[in-house]
Amino acid sequence: MKESSLTSEEKYFFMNEAIKEAHKALDLAEVPIGAIVVLDKQIIGRGYNLRETTQNALKHAEMTAIEEACSNIGSWRLEDAQLFVTLEPCPMCSGAILQSRIEEVYFGAFDLKAGACGSLINLLEDTRFNHWCYVESEVLANTCADLLSDFFKKIRVEKKRKKKEILEKD
Amino acid sequence: MKESSLTSEEKYFFMNEAIKEAHKALDLAEVPIGAIVVLDKQIIGRGYNLRETTQNALKHAEMTAIEEACSNIGSWRLEDAQLFVTLEPCPMCSGAILQSRIEEVYFGAFDLKAGACGSLINLLEDTRFNHWCYVESEVLANTCADLLSDFFKKIRVEKKRKKKEILEKD
Repeated sequence: MKESSLTSEEKYFFMNEAIKEAHKALDLAEVPIGAIVVLDKQIIGRGYNLRETTQNALKHAEMTAIEEACSNIGSWRLEDAQLFVTLEPCPMCSGAILQSRIEEVYFGAFDLKAGACGSLINLLEDTRFNHWCYVESEVLANTCADLLSDFFKKIRVEKKRKKKEILEKD
Repeated sequence: MKESSLTSEEKYFFMNEAIKEAHKALDLAEVPIGAIVVLDKQIIGRGYNLRETTQNALKHAEMTAIEEACSNIGSWRLEDAQLFVTLEPCPMCSGAILQSRIEEVYFGAFDLKAGACGSLINLLEDTRFNHWCYVESEVLANTCADLLSDFFKKIRVEKKRKKKEILEKD
């Protein structure tokens, strides 16, 4: 059984940094998800969702944060590192966490439709793979979830408004 | 039930192109795995394993091929595309295939220790996710598997030789 190496204060501090990244996505009208990678209490990688802006299917927050972390320490092995992300990682990002040997994963909201850390499958704690992680869910869950639900609510309101506009023109 | 859109000849032709990519990895002493993405019978993305050379945990063959394909068509949606890869995709690459909405996946050898398309889990045919694929395994399987087993055999021989050299010096 793996254990957390961080205090509650550290967890909240670092999740708030991931939330700051999610706001950068929001500023670009991207689904607001943010992530950071931490090593020895220092942030070594940051990322936010950029799928629409880059038109690149791989540009999830976690992927950019992991890529930056590898580049910063000059190694693909992020052993002893922690990853913080506002939403439960999908299969791609969970796989990237396993590939990069990240030790601890903290996420905010559960993703019941696509989550791979407990919701639909549980990749990070599957001991048949050659690496597995300590996983902690629902760190600042409400703040992370509200960011997403507010975003999707605004999209629905905007769609409704446009539909009404078209109907009124006809 | 999804179906293949390619003839046997086309499958062999494209898997041979993925094998050519695997040889590029081999030339750099990387684990020889190669991949291509095909759309309308044209290759729109190519990639080979570059994990050690780049020291980037994300640089699997499939990831580079998908990234190049997105860049070439200017969209993160690779709908109607096929991916060919010499080894069964891992969870990260299988997740990337789902994220990019690739329609058909053809792989060479099974990866019994880390494969996510039938070996340990079956991500690409899990209909609980918002996308799933047609999957065909063991296309030119022996050629793809031999590339890998020859590579690891050479590494073992080299390690043995070095160990002997050290023992003889002592």
